[in-house]
Parts: sequence; structure tokens; C-alpha cells
Amino acid sequence: MNILVLHGPNLNRLGKREPKVYGHTTLEQINGQIINLAQELGAVVETYQSNHEGDLIDRLQAASEKMDAVVFNPGAFTHYSIALRDAVASLDIPVIEVHLSNIHAREEFRQKSVIAAVAAGQISGFGSASYLLGVRAAVSLAQSRRNQK
Amino acid sequence: MNILVLHGPNLNRLGKREPKVYGHTTLEQINGQIINLAQELGAVVETYQSNHEGDLIDRLQAASEKMDAVVFNPGAFTHYSIALRDAVASLDIPVIEVHLSNIHAREEFRQKSVIAAVAAGQISGFGSASYLLGVRAAVSLAQSRRNQK
Amino acid sequence: MNILVLHGPNLNRLGKREPKVYGHTTLEQINGQIINLAQELGAVVETYQSNHEGDLIDRLQAASEKMDAVVFNPGAFTHYSIALRDAVASLDIPVIEVHLSNIHAREEFRQKSVIAAVAAGQISGFGSASYLLGVRAAVSLAQSRRNQK
Amino acid sequence: MNILVLHGPNLNRLGKREPKVYGHTTLEQINGQIINLAQELGAVVETYQSNHEGDLIDRLQAASEKMDAVVFNPGAFTHYSIALRDAVASLDIPVIEVHLSNIHAREEFRQKSVIAAVAAGQISGFGSASYLLGVRAAVSLAQSRRNQK
Amino acid sequence: MNILVLHGPNLNRLGKREPKVYGHTTLEQINGQIINLAQELGAVVETYQSNHEGDLIDRLQAASEKMDAVVFNPGAFTHYSIALRDAVASLDIPVIEVHLSNIHAREEFRQKSVIAAVAAGQISGFGSASYLLGVRAAVSLAQSRRNQK
Amino acid sequence: MNILVLHGPNLNRLGKREPKVYGHTTLEQINGQIINLAQELGAVVETYQSNHEGDLIDRLQAASEKMDAVVFNPGAFTHYSIALRDAVASLDIPVIEVHLSNIHAREEFRQKSVIAAVAAGQISGFGSASYLLGVRAAVSLAQSRRNQK
Amino acid sequence: MNILVLHGPNLNRLGKREPKVYGHTTLEQINGQIINLAQELGAVVETYQSNHEGDLIDRLQAASEKMDAVVFNPGAFTHYSIALRDAVASLDIPVIEVHLSNIHAREEFRQKSVIAAVAAGQISGFGSASYLLGVRAAVSLAQSRRNQK
Amino acid sequence: MNILVLHGPNLNRLGKREPKVYGHTTLEQINGQIINLAQELGAVVETYQSNHEGDLIDRLQAASEKMDAVVFNPGAFTHYSIALRDAVASLDIPVIEVHLSNIHAREEFRQKSVIAAVAAGQISGFGSASYLLGVRAAVSLAQSRRNQK
Amino acid sequence: MNILVLHGPNLNRLGKREPKVYGHTTLEQINGQIINLAQELGAVVETYQSNHEGDLIDRLQAASEKMDAVVFNPGAFTHYSIALRDAVASLDIPVIEVHLSNIHAREEFRQKSVIAAVAAGQISGFGSASYLLGVRAAVSLAQSRRNQK
Amino acid sequence: MNILVLHGPNLNRLGKREPKVYGHTTLEQINGQIINLAQELGAVVETYQSNHEGDLIDRLQAASEKMDAVVFNPGAFTHYSIALRDAVASLDIPVIEVHLSNIHAREEFRQKSVIAAVAAGQISGFGSASYLLGVRAAVSLAQSRRNQK
Amino acid sequence: MNILVLHGPNLNRLGKREPKVYGHTTLEQINGQIINLAQELGAVVETYQSNHEGDLIDRLQAASEKMDAVVFNPGAFTHYSIALRDAVASLDIPVIEVHLSNIHAREEFRQKSVIAAVAAGQISGFGSASYLLGVRAAVSLAQSRRNQK
Amino acid sequence: MNILVLHGPNLNRLGKREPKVYGHTTLEQINGQIINLAQELGAVVETYQSNHEGDLIDRLQAASEKMDAVVFNPGAFTHYSIALRDAVASLDIPVIEVHLSNIHAREEFRQKSVIAAVAAGQISGFGSASYLLGVRAAVSLAQSRRNQK
Repeated sequence: MNILVLHGPNLNRLGKREPKVYGHTTLEQINGQIINLAQELGAVVETYQSNHEGDLIDRLQAASEKMDAVVFNPGAFTHYSIALRDAVASLDIPVIEVHLSNIHAREEFRQKSVIAAVAAGQISGFGSASYLLGVRAAVSLAQSRRNQK
Repeated sequence: MNILVLHGPNLNRLGKREPKVYGHTTLEQINGQIINLAQELGAVVETYQSNHEGDLIDRLQAASEKMDAVVFNPGAFTHYSIALRDAVASLDIPVIEVHLSNIHAREEFRQKSVIAAVAAGQISGFGSASYLLGVRAAVSLAQSRRNQK
Repeated sequence: MNILVLHGPNLNRLGKREPKVYGHTTLEQINGQIINLAQELGAVVETYQSNHEGDLIDRLQAASEKMDAVVFNPGAFTHYSIALRDAVASLDIPVIEVHLSNIHAREEFRQKSVIAAVAAGQISGFGSASYLLGVRAAVSLAQSRRNQK
Repeated sequence: MNILVLHGPNLNRLGKREPKVYGHTTLEQINGQIINLAQELGAVVETYQSNHEGDLIDRLQAASEKMDAVVFNPGAFTHYSIALRDAVASLDIPVIEVHLSNIHAREEFRQKSVIAAVAAGQISGFGSASYLLGVRAAVSLAQSRRNQK
Repeated sequence: MNILVLHGPNLNRLGKREPKVYGHTTLEQINGQIINLAQELGAVVETYQSNHEGDLIDRLQAASEKMDAVVFNPGAFTHYSIALRDAVASLDIPVIEVHLSNIHAREEFRQKSVIAAVAAGQISGFGSASYLLGVRAAVSLAQSRRNQK
Repeated sequence: MNILVLHGPNLNRLGKREPKVYGHTTLEQINGQIINLAQELGAVVETYQSNHEGDLIDRLQAASEKMDAVVFNPGAFTHYSIALRDAVASLDIPVIEVHLSNIHAREEFRQKSVIAAVAAGQISGFGSASYLLGVRAAVSLAQSRRNQK
Repeated sequence: MNILVLHGPNLNRLGKREPKVYGHTTLEQINGQIINLAQELGAVVETYQSNHEGDLIDRLQAASEKMDAVVFNPGAFTHYSIALRDAVASLDIPVIEVHLSNIHAREEFRQKSVIAAVAAGQISGFGSASYLLGVRAAVSLAQSRRNQK
Repeated sequence: MNILVLHGPNLNRLGKREPKVYGHTTLEQINGQIINLAQELGAVVETYQSNHEGDLIDRLQAASEKMDAVVFNPGAFTHYSIALRDAVASLDIPVIEVHLSNIHAREEFRQKSVIAAVAAGQISGFGSASYLLGVRAAVSLAQSRRNQK
Repeated sequence: MNILVLHGPNLNRLGKREPKVYGHTTLEQINGQIINLAQELGAVVETYQSNHEGDLIDRLQAASEKMDAVVFNPGAFTHYSIALRDAVASLDIPVIEVHLSNIHAREEFRQKSVIAAVAAGQISGFGSASYLLGVRAAVSLAQSRRNQK
Repeated sequence: MNILVLHGPNLNRLGKREPKVYGHTTLEQINGQIINLAQELGAVVETYQSNHEGDLIDRLQAASEKMDAVVFNPGAFTHYSIALRDAVASLDIPVIEVHLSNIHAREEFRQKSVIAAVAAGQISGFGSASYLLGVRAAVSLAQSRRNQK
Repeated sequence: MNILVLHGPNLNRLGKREPKVYGHTTLEQINGQIINLAQELGAVVETYQSNHEGDLIDRLQAASEKMDAVVFNPGAFTHYSIALRDAVASLDIPVIEVHLSNIHAREEFRQKSVIAAVAAGQISGFGSASYLLGVRAAVSLAQSRRNQK
Repeated sequence: MNILVLHGPNLNRLGKREPKVYGHTTLEQINGQIINLAQELGAVVETYQSNHEGDLIDRLQAASEKMDAVVFNPGAFTHYSIALRDAVASLDIPVIEVHLSNIHAREEFRQKSVIAAVAAGQISGFGSASYLLGVRAAVSLAQSRRNQK
């Protein structure tokens, strides 16, 4: 089972950027936790971060062939990138939207996700644990889909 | 470790009510899954369902003394019960908001939660697995809090 | 044929409460008119009033098994109780929404019903006759459903 | 007792037009049912359909002298014809607004009636039975008015 | 100098319709006052009333050739007839918008005129005197235009 | 008969200020035209201009005792001065709101008058003739009131 | 003279709940202060708290017969319970709405009271002193009403 | 193959009316171009213009039997005539909405079409060429439909 | 202890102005009641009324040095004077906002106070008693502050 | 004559992505149809697709020198890319906006194009034929411009 | 070269008022810095502060004759004084709007300036340096204008 | 001292693009002016332009280590790029937002900056001088920060 974990803009700055909101853990540390959990659950994880909306779309499109599920933190693109929404909607594998912070407790404009409506589900507010819960959900959804075939 | 799992209005009808939206699993079956997982994670779970906003507030208030965390599906109250929001805000234990369906993919009025801003986080769209992910998050948050003391 | 007639909050005060808006007829008198008409149409009516949202939900849920249709005046809950909306939506018997006053001619916030979209239809503005037209509609819809089976 | 039953734009296409929304009954069949019920209730009914807003206004104005009540399905004019609203408001006989479909369960723009606030009441969602309930309401209101004089 | 005075829907019912809002003077009486004033100012007036939006458009279009100015009370069409707005905008003679009642003191939806922006000016709230002031304005504007040529 | 003609902020700059919008006539010239017309109609006019909201309120309050009507161009205060609205509402003599330009054809924020709802009526768009029509309306309304006493 | 002091949801948690917003005084202490002041003013006070909207409605209805005035802190229900609004509106004794915190200085959704429009008046922002000022207002209004009879 | 080309209100004034917005070509000239192109594409065209909403509805309804497609410029009715929308929706032949000017580049209220959602498609901004492209689209859609049968 | 009581625009007309809304008591009478109560509570009161926003700001600024608290009825400025809001916010003595009428029961635009968020609290709807309750609150808040020092 | 045909994000997935909305034709097939038609009309076409907003801007800027017109399907960027709008606005060659689906019949957020206002015109809803009609419009507009020089 | 520096309401309290938002520098100190910089740039500065909207309008009007540019901090009037906007618009010398704090980072209602659209430009967020940058801009704009003549 | 000057999308087209809005100066000329001023102020400037949102984010992130301040014209991204906002917010060096044109005087959608709230300040409307004022502000802010350390 292959899982793509996709990180959106500015997440490469985790740990350095506004630690009061996003905590002190770096992206590398989160990727490490994810890979460990995936191994435990019998899945192979690929991680990718980009500040470029177009790169994220390219990666999502490519995932449709080699991946069983995607765990996606769209960062700020969450709130306006309809192009990413369309890329997610065009996949026939489940995409799980995750957020480190509780976006529903932040500024008005961060409470709306234009992507959530086409994702399988959304997990928000648990810090790096949001990714881990997302990986569990991804593995579980991908297994259900395999079993249905 | 004690976890309260609280079900809001109409969830007692799960399995019978609009199965296209909410699936065929009954609330009893979900409670069974929750209790099994909790046991596995070393936690004791208490479950409660009510159609009465006041009952849910009473239960939340009582939880502040004997529980370590709450997993809460507020059902339709999610969208307007500021009284439940205040009850959640008044607790000093973490409350995890969960939803069976992906509320962000439904009617406009269901996409806004008046409770999420005072919850620890929100998990939405994974069917009964939303509860299971919620229990994992609850146990993990409660453990962090114990360790901090 | 069994019909539940459900009265929402403050309707027990009919006749005493703001007679300029709601008239001088009491709830008991309306229930009497309803029972007479039902008898004439060959139906048995049960009436129930509550100021408690949760009680009304409980009653609606119970109706799904022993009733053929519901005539429901949700009172002020009309305008915000999504929990009642969900309870109505979960029934597979027709629910007819009725209002004594013409809600479309009143304050802005009373012109919107969050329940109407999941009701079979809405009758508003005819005083106690709204209930009587509602009972006729209920009997007629229940009969059509019987005939279809 | 004389009742005018007025049908707005496109209702002449009933049965042919979008049967999923409006059913298979034609306007002629509905008029037949109306006339039968009116006869039963001791009333004489005149029916008229037009796609022209101005014609409907002319007819409403003329009704003020020879009619005791009007049953009016304004069709799409419901949602924007303030001119029809003014014509209804200028009558001193009761006007009952009826709709075949449950307008409160349709597109956002169909949920608002600019006419309802000046009608006696509104009946919506019961198919051709909306007209029949409307005729009953009309006869009953006209009789009350006669008795008051 | 030729002035067209155009009356919109329901104005033929003046005196009978809602006298609390519109007064007891009939349209014939107003037309009489207008003709007298016009004569005094050396102008010839033609008056026309219709409940049909299309008729009013036809008349406005025809006015562009034989009239020097138009005094126009669009009635309820004021608030939504963009077709009338376009007809007014297409004329190269001045059109003066008049209203019997003070539309700015009435319901929210009556406070907005979709026509005013393309009229020469608006006079509102003086009862039948609104027309008389409108005729004075029309004569004066038409004279200025003549003098400029 | 005494008429107060009140000019709001920046109107002292007429002729110099944005002539494309407001024309080349100065306030002194307009006052001259007003006084001539008033004399013709048998009325005495007092004119006053101020850039100070408080001064205009003071003048309006004082007018209630010595004046029969007020012609008032509130300038930019039209759009936000609820204090002026209250001062107008507190008078029991008619206040006619006038505007040089057609405010309904200008920026969105200029199309709403917070004062019009408590004025007798509004005249807008006829340049200095707006004042002259306003004086006619004022004299006529004051005479009607005298006759009613 | 009898005064009902009614406390809405979560007020039983005062002193424990968010002391930064609501202070350290408990509900029992506030009730004690109220009873002392009432005694001083020659009034008898009954206090009641509930987290259940329906209970509060029941109590308000019952008050109409044995009470002279009500001091009501609707808590979070302030912002959405139209059912409580209707219950307040149906009483013919004065109801004074009070709030511990200054609701106008808090979140947008807390600045609107759906109840205030049918209350006698509103007092907000003075901590427990809001109740004491409310009791003074209640006694004074009740006395005026007695004197008027 | 028969195509109806329908022109809405004020289009009879093309060439005379606001040439800066709509150009100098008259409706007759456009009809000539349309007929030539249709002939070239092997289609017969019927053209009709009306300022009357009701006439346009009548024509659309009649088209359902003798026409293969409609090219429709609803003019100002585009923005508010839900009655025309319903007439278009009730046809089972394709209707192509066309506009001379680019409505998306004009006033806010002209950017929204209430009809487009039930049309096959919309072409806007190419002057008389909008009609010619519309005829091409109409012929092509009608041919596809024939081939599918 | 020194208390400033500040009255905003048009309050000098109390008793004469719209008595249905504001009652028959004059400002002088209210000032008399205030002074009596203050004396009873051991405070010295200074009262000031102005129709000029700038005067009220000047007075508020001056109060910061010689006064212990301010009771302020901003009149119509309540709804738009952000300059007064800033003046209130810049004081480090408590300012109590009072209103004679229940502003929450009046026009939409009067229900919002731009000042309340920076005041200590708001009292509204008790006629002249609003001021008296305000003086009590002012004295009590000023005493608390003294005790804290 | 040179025409650039520009395809926005996710259009490379045509045929695979949501065929219910976008059909089964691939982008290669559409490009083929376009090239054939262009040849027939005597034009040379260059096609380019990108998921990167910046790439599309770069291409548009470059087109200003070597192209005579652009046919542009901005995909999801249609609804929010003001940067693309500015790039289009900065060109002095005509840009024709095209859409496969009828965007006016889809989700609310897809009905608004931020680009259309600066395009020559918009064609929407005809599947791949939208591009072909767009190429015809492009060639025709480019020829007119040549002739005008 | 003469520059007017105009300070709006409450700016006389700088240093005392909310130092967390506005800093500890007093208005006198800022004026000193401004005068020094002006001298350095060869300009003469006049400074004026008022809490009275009317005074600021009077000063702006007077500036049109003796000043070459205005640096204006409208304080709270920024957000609602359309009268000041009109005064600025009526000047034919450049007016530079400055703000000490970054108004775009403050409350929603402070982010909109009704004056900016008619100012030459806006500088916001640099504390007293905003004024100094404003003086540089003023001198530079005035010099360009001189050179153009 | 090192300053990054960052230019957003379409700014490479300055001088060619819409000169009426943006003037005839090219980006190279502006960069020249900036470098000259920086030299004069003792600072080293690096300039960079991109049409790619991701490139600008990459550059901002890199600036946090080698730069003392950033002068940033985000072009059209100003109005929607929350990703750029987050990149700016994550820096601990000051970012000054500049605009050539007065964005507050342009289309509604250009008046809102999603970036300004996290910038140090905003300068808008002075043409290329906006950049020069921005460089002055940048140098001054960077120096203050150095001095504070």
C-alpha cells in the first residue's frame, strides 16, 4: 500500500515559523513520525512539500496511478485554490485533508476550506498528530476500497 | 483514563435514518467498536446519547470532574447551540468534535460549526471511523496533559 | 389511520398570548376541532404539546412506528431547530408543517423555516384552519401512500 | 359565492413541463378537480391562466368587484413581481397563494415569495391538492367575511 | 412642447387602493391637475396608464420621436424592471421619475429604484404634487435643451 | 410664511468644487434664485450654510418655532448623520430633502439617504432647480397645514 | 412584590468557568446578594437556574400568574432562542434582560440578542451588579404598573 | 432544421440606442446576417422580437413543437425573468443564450443571468457575431440530438 | 467623587420631541433626578448636553483628569461616531453607556452601538431610570477602582 | 494569422477526470479539432497547457508580440486569479474566454469569472465546440483589427 | 512651498491614549519632527489639530488657496466622514492620507477608509514616520505640479 | 544593511501595460531609482520579479536569513494570496507593502489586501515614489531593530 503525504506552502518553515500557532516540531520530524507509523501499519509513504500550487497539482495528478491514498495539508491554499480542489476531485483515490492547527478557531478566512467538500474527510487541530490520524484514515480507506474490488 | 463519548440528537436513529448519508451501522455497533478500541488503548469509555440540548450540557459539566477527555458528536446542535459551545469552553479537559459525514461537503448551513472554535480539534467524514480516530486523539491528548503535570 | 398533531413551544398559551397576532382560540379548542374533523375523515388523532425541543424530537422519532402522518406546528423552533429538521427528515411518513399566522408577513427572521425543506408541504396563515387543512392533507397523503403499497 | 382561480406563467404546460418537479397532471385536469370541489362546497369557480404579468394584474383588479376570494398560483412571478404584490394588496377580498411544489425545498431564489406577505396565507407542496386546500380556505374565509358583515 | 405622462401598474386603482398609503385622489383627478398646469406652462400633455411592462416600453420608445420629455411613475416596476431602465436609457429626451409616496420611507425593497440612475432626476413623497413638480421639471429641462440647440 | 433653506457641508464651495458633478453656479446665485421665487410665492426665506453637523442640528431645532417649512440639502451628511435624521424627525413642520445631483446615479454609498425616511419627500437631480422645486413643495405643504388648522 | 430571577445555561458553573471572562463569584453568592437587595427594597425573590431551554420557558409561563417582574439572564440562549423570545413576549409583566459581561464587547455573534426587542430593557457588563441593577429596575417597573392600575 | 431566433426587450432599437454600448448595426441587419448563415448551414430561421415578457414565453412554448433549437437574447430580462427561465427549462430542445455586449464587463446587476443555468450555453461579447456563433452552436447541437435518436 | 453626565444630540429637545418614543420628561427634570440621587450616594454630578460631536469629545477628554466616572447617552452618535468611541477608549475612568429607549427594539440601524464595546457596560430601555441606574453603576465602579488602589 | 490556445489547470486530465461533467474527449483530441478548424480558416494555432498560474502568465505576456489572438480556458483559475486577469488586461490583442461546461449552471463559486470583464467575450457550455466557436471568434476579431489598421 | 499637516480627533491625546496601539510620542513631538524635516526639504509647515469634523472641513477648504499640499491624518473620521471626503475631493492640491498604526491590521471597521479614494495616496503603519514619509510625498508631489505648470 | 525589493506578477510589463493606470516608467528604471536611493542611505538592494506565487514565497523565505528588510509589491496577489501572507508573517524582519497606484481608489476587489495585516505598513498611490518611500521606511525600521538589540 502506497500513501502520498503532501505538504503545502510554508510548511517547510515549520518550527521556525510562528511557533505559538504551529509548535516547535519541524517538518522533518513530522515526516519521521509518519514514516514510522506507516511502517507499523504496513504502508509505504512518500512525502513532498512545495510552495508552488502548480507543483502540488502535478503531484496529485501523478498520484492517481501509483498511490492508494493521499494525506494532504494544503496550507494556505486550503482557503482559495479551486485548482487544487479540482485536482483532488479528479482523483479516484481517497484524499484526506489535514491541518496542524484548529482552523475553525482561527481568523474568519481560515475557517473555510474550498477543498474539504471533495476530500474524503478533514482532520484539524491535533498538531503533528493530525497527520498520524490522517495516515490511519488513509490506510483504512484504501483497505476498504481494496476489499470492495 | 476515562473518556466520555457523547452523541447528540437523532444519532439514536443511526442505521434507520437516511442511510444514504449516514450508513447502515447502528449506534450500538459504533459504541461497541469504540469500547473495544478504548480497551486496547487502556482507557475506560462511557457513552451517552440524548436528543435534549440541556441533558448534553448537564453531562458535559459533570464530565469536568470524572473524565480525562470527551469525544463529542453534537449532531445538528453543531450548527447553532451556543449553549453547548459555552459548556465545552467551560471544561478544562480536551473535547474532540467528531462527525460521521463530511459536514464540509453538505448543505451550506451544515458547514459551519459554532462549537469547533472551542474544541481541541475536529474530525469529520470517516463514518464510524471518525469516532475511533477521535478516541485515539482523546487518549493521546489526555496522556500529554498528564505528562505535563 | 393514525395522525400525530404536534404543537411546539408557547402554543399552550394560545388565547392568552398576544391575541392580536394569534387570536383568542385556545389550544384545547383547536384540538377539539382537529379531533372532530379527523373523526369525520376516518382518522384517529393524538395531540401533544411541549416547550422542550428534545421532547418534540422524541415524539417525532416514536411516531415513525405507530403513525401514518404528522401535522406539526414547530412554533419558534421553525426558525432555528436543525435538530427538529433532522428528526423530520429521518421519518418515512409525511410531515405537514402548519402555522397559525402567516409567517411570511411577519418579522424577517420568522419568514425562514429550517424545517420546511424536509416537510411534505407547508400551510401558513389561516389561524386554526391551518391545522384543519393540514389534517386533510395528512389523511390524503397517508392514503396515497397506502394505495401505492 | 364566486372564486377566481388564477394560474401564472408556464402553468399551461403542466404535465409536459419537467414532470419530475411538477407531476403528470395537466392544468385542465386540475381545473376539473377544482370545479368539482367548488360545486360540492356551494361555490362557483372561474379559472384563468396567463403568461403575461399585466394580464394577471388586470384580472386581479377586475376580481375585486365580482369575486369573493382568489386562489392564486403566481408561478415564477412569485419571486419578483412586486406589481402583482401591489395588485393583491389593493384587493379587499382574501387571496390565497398556492404552489404545486414545496417551494421551500427548492432553489434558494424560489424560497422567497414577494407576494405572500400580502396574501391571506400560503399553501405549498401538495401537488394539485394545494389548489383544493386553497379552495377550501377561500370558501371558508369568504364565508367568515360574509358573516362579519 | 409635448410631454408624455406615463403611469405604471396599479395606478389606475388610485383612490380605491390602500388610501392610507396613496390618498383618495383618483388617477383621473391627477391627470386633470397635470393638464391644467401644463396648459399654464405652454405644454401639451399626453397621459397613459398600463399594468403591462411591455406596453410601457413600447410607449417610451415611441416617445423618443414625438415628445420633448417624459414624466414617469413606474409604480412597482421601479424596483425590478431593468427592461424599463433600458428603455429610459435609450431615449435622448429627459425622463423624470416621480412617486406619490415617499419610497425612501417604505419597505426596504421599495427604497431602491433600478430606473433612477438613468432618469434625469427623481421626485418622491408629495402625493399628486409629485407629478406637478415633475411636469415643471420636464418643461424646464426641455426648454434648456431647445435653447442649447 | 417663513421658509428655512439649509445647506450642508462643502456647499459653500459650489462653482469651485468639481464643476463636472455640481455645475458652475455658486451658492450665492442659488440663494438669489430661491429668494426671488419665494417672494413670487409670498414667502420669506432665510438661508444658512454650515460645514458643522452640530450647527445644522441647532438650526433645525430653532426652526421648529419660527419657520413653516425647511428645504434641506444635507450634502454628505445625507448618508450617515443619524443625528440630523433625529433632528428632522423631532420637528413638526415639513422638511423637504433636496440634492443638486441625481444621487441615485452616483457611487453606491451616495444612493442611500438616512434622512429621507423622516423627510416629507425628496427631490434629486435637477441642479439648482432642485431647490426651486423644493421651495414650491415647501410652500404648498405649509399652506395645506395652515388650512387644516 | 414577587420577582423571579432566572439564570440560563452554564451559569451554574460561575466562578469555575472561564474566570477571566465571568469573574470568581459563584451563582450562590450572586443569589445571596440579590436576596439581600430585594429584602431591602421590600420584594421577595425566587431564583432558578437551568440548562434546559424548555424548563426556562415553563418557568417564564408560570411567572405570568404569581410574579410581578422577571430578571432574566438567558446566557447563550440570548443569541438564538426565539422560543424564549416568544415566551417573554407572551408575558404581561416586565422582563429585564441582564448580562454579567459586556456582550457588546465580545464575539460578533454575542452582540445580538434575539430577546432584547421584547424585554423591557437590557443591562450588560457590570458583573454581578448587572443583576442588582436589574432587580432595582424590576421593582421600579412593577411599582409603576401597580400605581397605574 | 428549424431555428428560432428570439430577441428580447429594446433590441428593436439597436443602432439607435446607446451606440457606444451596442454598436451601429440595426436588428434588421443582424437578422439578415443570421438568415444568410443559416442558409449556408442548411437551416431555416424564424426571427421574432418583443418588449413583452409574456410574448416571449408564448413563443418559447410554441417553439417546443416546430423548432429544433432556439437562439435567445433575453435582453434585460436576462437578469430577473424567472418566468422566462422556467419557459426555457420546460423545452426539450436546446436554447442558446447570446448577448451582444460582454455582460460580464458591465454593471454588477448585468453580470448575473437567471436564465443561463437552464440554457445549453452562453455566448457573450462579440456584437452581432454572438448571434452567428449562437446559430452555429444551435445547428450543431440540433444535429447531435438528431443523430442520437 | 465626581461624575460627569453627558447628553448627546437632540436630547435637549426631550419632552417636545417624539413623546411616543421618548416620553414627556424634559432633560432638566432628568438632570434634577440625577443630582438628587448622586447627592444621596455621596457624589457630585456635572451635566452637559451638546449637539456637536467635537464638543462631546472635548468634554470626554477633559473628564479624564477631574472625573471619577462618566454616564454617557451618545444619542444618535451611538450608531456611527467612531471618534467618540476612540475618545471613550482613551479614558482610564469607567464610562457607562445609557439609553432612554430600548435601542434593541427599534430600527435595525439603532440596534448597533459602535461605542458599547469600549464602555464599561450598557443600560438601555428604562426611560429616565436608565440614567439613575447608570449613576449607581458609575459610583459603584469608581469606588471599586479607588479601593483597588 | 497566429492564434494561441491556452489551457489552464487540470485540463491535461480531460477524459479521465469527472467525465460526467467534462465528457470523454481528451485534450489531444480537442487540440486536433482546433488545428483542423484553424487550418480551414487560414490560421496557425499554437496550443499550451499548464497547471502553473505563473506559466500561463508568462505565456500570455509572450503572446503579445507573436500572436494575433488568444483562446483561453483558464480552468479553475477563472474564479480567483486576478494575476491572470491583469495579464489578459495588459495585452492589446483580443483574448476569448472559453469553458467546456456551462459554468453558469454549476456551483455558485464557479459562476463568477474574474477574468471575463477584461476578455473580449466569453463562450461557455458547448463542450469541445466551445473552443471551436472561440477560434472562429478569435480569427474574426483579429481580421477586423487588421482591417482597421 | 507650504504644507498643511492636519490631525483629526483624539490625536491631541497621543502619548496618553492607548500607548500600546499608538506609542508614547506626543503630538507636539511629532509636530517638531515634521517641522525639522520640512525645513530640511525647503518647505514651511503649518500644523492643526481638531476634534471637530466641521473645523477640519473649514481648514481643508481654506488650504486650497494658501497651501501646496496637505498631509492629513483623519483619525476615526477616516472610516465614516463622507463630508471630509468631499472636502478633500474639492481641493486641487494633493492630499496625502497618513496613519500612525497599520489600519489594515486592526478591527474590520478600521480597515476601510472612505477618504483614501480621493486622496493622492495612503501611508499607514509606520508610527510618527508615517507623517515624515507623508511630508516627503507631499513636497515631491507639489514640486511635480509646479514643474508641470 | 541588505534590502530585498520584490516585484509581483505582471510588473515586468510596466511601461507597456495599461500606461493610463501604471504610467510609462519601466521596471528597470524603477529598480535604478531604488538602487540609487539605497546607496545614498547606505544600504544594498537586491531586486527580483516573478509571475510565480511559489517563486515569491521561496524568495521571501530565503530573505529571512540574509536580509534586514523587504519592500514588497505583491501586485495582483495582494488580493488573494494567503500563501504569500503566511510567508510574510513567518519572517522576523519587517516587510513593507507598496503599490504604484492608489489601490483604495480602484475596483472594489483591489481595495482589500490580504497581506497588509501582517506587513509592517502599507504605502500606496505615489507611482514609483511608493517604492522609494518604502525603501526609506525599510532602512529606518531595520535600523531601529538593530539599535534595539
